[in-house]
Amino acid sequence: MATEDAVLLPAEQLHQFMTDVFCFAGVPAGDAKIVADVLIASDLRGIESHGVQRLRMYYDRIKAGILQPVTRPETVKESPTTAVIDGHDGMGHVIGVHSMNLAVQKARDFGMGAVAVRNSSHFGIAGYYALMAVRAGMIGLVVTNTRPSIAPTFGVQPLLGTNPIAFGAPTDEDCPYLFDAATSIIQRGKVEVLARAKKPASPGWVINQVGQPATDADEILKGLNKDTHSLLPIGGYGEQFGGHKGYGLSTVVEILSASLQMGLFLHNLMGIDENGKARPHRIGHFFMAVNIENFLPLAEFRKTTGEILRELRSSRKAPGEKRIYTANEKEYENEFRVRREGVPIIADLQKDLIYLRNEAGLFQYQFPF
Amino acid sequence: MATEDAVLLPAEQLHQFMTDVFCFAGVPAGDAKIVADVLIASDLRGIESHGVQRLRMYYDRIKAGILQPVTRPETVKESPTTAVIDGHDGMGHVIGVHSMNLAVQKARDFGMGAVAVRNSSHFGIAGYYALMAVRAGMIGLVVTNTRPSIAPTFGVQPLLGTNPIAFGAPTDEDCPYLFDAATSIIQRGKVEVLARAKKPASPGWVINQVGQPATDADEILKGLNKDTHSLLPIGGYGEQFGGHKGYGLSTVVEILSASLQMGLFLHNLMGIDENGKARPHRIGHFFMAVNIENFLPLAEFRKTTGEILRELRSSRKAPGEKRIYTANEKEYENEFRVRREGVPIIADLQKDLIYLRNEAGLFQYQFPF
Repeated sequence: MATEDAVLLPAEQLHQFMTDVFCFAGVPAGDAKIVADVLIASDLRGIESHGVQRLRMYYDRIKAGILQPVTRPETVKESPTTAVIDGHDGMGHVIGVHSMNLAVQKARDFGMGAVAVRNSSHFGIAGYYALMAVRAGMIGLVVTNTRPSIAPTFGVQPLLGTNPIAFGAPTDEDCPYLFDAATSIIQRGKVEVLARAKKPASPGWVINQVGQPATDADEILKGLNKDTHSLLPIGGYGEQFGGHKGYGLSTVVEILSASLQMGLFLHNLMGIDENGKARPHRIGHFFMAVNIENFLPLAEFRKTTGEILRELRSSRKAPGEKRIYTANEKEYENEFRVRREGVPIIADLQKDLIYLRNEAGLFQYQFPF
Repeated sequence: MATEDAVLLPAEQLHQFMTDVFCFAGVPAGDAKIVADVLIASDLRGIESHGVQRLRMYYDRIKAGILQPVTRPETVKESPTTAVIDGHDGMGHVIGVHSMNLAVQKARDFGMGAVAVRNSSHFGIAGYYALMAVRAGMIGLVVTNTRPSIAPTFGVQPLLGTNPIAFGAPTDEDCPYLFDAATSIIQRGKVEVLARAKKPASPGWVINQVGQPATDADEILKGLNKDTHSLLPIGGYGEQFGGHKGYGLSTVVEILSASLQMGLFLHNLMGIDENGKARPHRIGHFFMAVNIENFLPLAEFRKTTGEILRELRSSRKAPGEKRIYTANEKEYENEFRVRREGVPIIADLQKDLIYLRNEAGLFQYQFPF
């Protein structure tokens, strides 16, 4: 998604810069590093919508008092395999790492672990946390609800969040299997990237308030906040091509993210109180880890999974197609490229970085813009 | 999907008939009732592809010796929260009920339970087992791999099964939430129903070996077995409308269904040995139960989930649309209608029922055809 006016910055420099900005904003040093880790992981994977492009958003929310820089996750209920965590409006990334660590520990002790979280905030890419389980030799599943944006099938009101599902599993290859996708065709972050790059959305991704296709990215972003535009679920409008399935999956995510912890859901996740004033989003997450060794030796699991992926990739291609991917290959390969070449920083984002550098007085950072 | 030539038979009569056919085929009486229960549940829900239309298929497979009428599920590995079951080519429905009962018991004792199954067979609708967990006040998740039919994104070879995902959750309404859907736009059973009804498939559901749309239902069914036709995943062809997401989810199902128990996968699930001879399909399943009471009082979960569903259903509709559904409402309402009116039996199926009645000598059944 990098455009002509993008400048490339080294990932290490951006990581350090983000850490310093968060520290300036009052985030404790260890937590600031965690948040920067999650954000740069997104840029490295090529998911620019969820990386440094969101730095200013987090900073502004902390400054506005709707995001707590000091995160104090509280365990409000616990059993051998489960826990309910209250994030108290702290940094979602810190809450996420804490919660997945807890799920992994429970899975190590009892075979499975699941943690439901309330009163959290935007935690970056869900896949980051699923991969924590994978590194522990486990299956990881992570879902979260988010600000309203998807309309139900036959509806025109954005209610469900883009509600991503992340599922990670170890393989016998260097690249683990990681499915990490919104249950909408595209996610809000992609519309933000399109808006910054002054590009239109494809017809079939978004509808307006009378159910017709909408393509203007700026209008879509405004419309999502004014209830006049909605993202379509995977499968698109109606039922003909399975749109009701994408809608149903998005609802599954909403249930897992809210119902296990008495959390907010749908319209109440707008982050706006009854007087139209910004308030904490109070989103919910669900983290799960399954310890593979409880079923069979991990090496056997890795082998079967690797063979499934290799059989898919080596199958017959459609005429003119060069390659069949399995989930995470593109992102995994992208990481090597971005580490070598740098993270693309487009014009709007350059302004944000200058602004944040000046705010935080971080004049040791020399940006080539 | 009922057509003009369909005759309606009472669900109770069909249930008893199926039980008697299975008993004749050598299935023990208790197991025969379980299988008939699962099949009639599908007809009641209006999913005719997975109900009595499959009776002949099961019967033929038992007769051919590739499906064992006496089911002996063996626990090959077990931990407090997990188990691996070998189905030894028995009846998938019996294995399914056994496995979900085990997962629910483990969840009752430890908060969560998961059971991976190998060497099983077609178990009907996955949702049946998810609803078992729901009746126990739990979340139920069930996935299974199936015969190869979906091509990976940019591929033209049917490799992934229709790989359904069933997720059930209790609500404060009579109708529980149940998402139960193939990860393809349509499933093989629907093509079978179309073929029986001599109707075409919609362009965009299926591709041929050069990646072009295919619509002839008979040709598609033949092509799926000859590797020349493939179903498309939710999201359709390519990546533009999220086809890679449907493909990724289908792969998640394949991994959960095979990798935790060293099972067969993809092309090896054709049910044909190296000499082209029919053999057991040896599919794998994954059952999971999450005990809601470990997180919060069940009544709170029911209330939040019910409110999510009601907010979705009462949201603004697109012009001309009469109703916004949440998953399971249509099927739940259908059950009342089918119990009242009967199960539609189309011409081809009438022949199957007559054949099976004669085979089994069940002349006490008087069919109006």
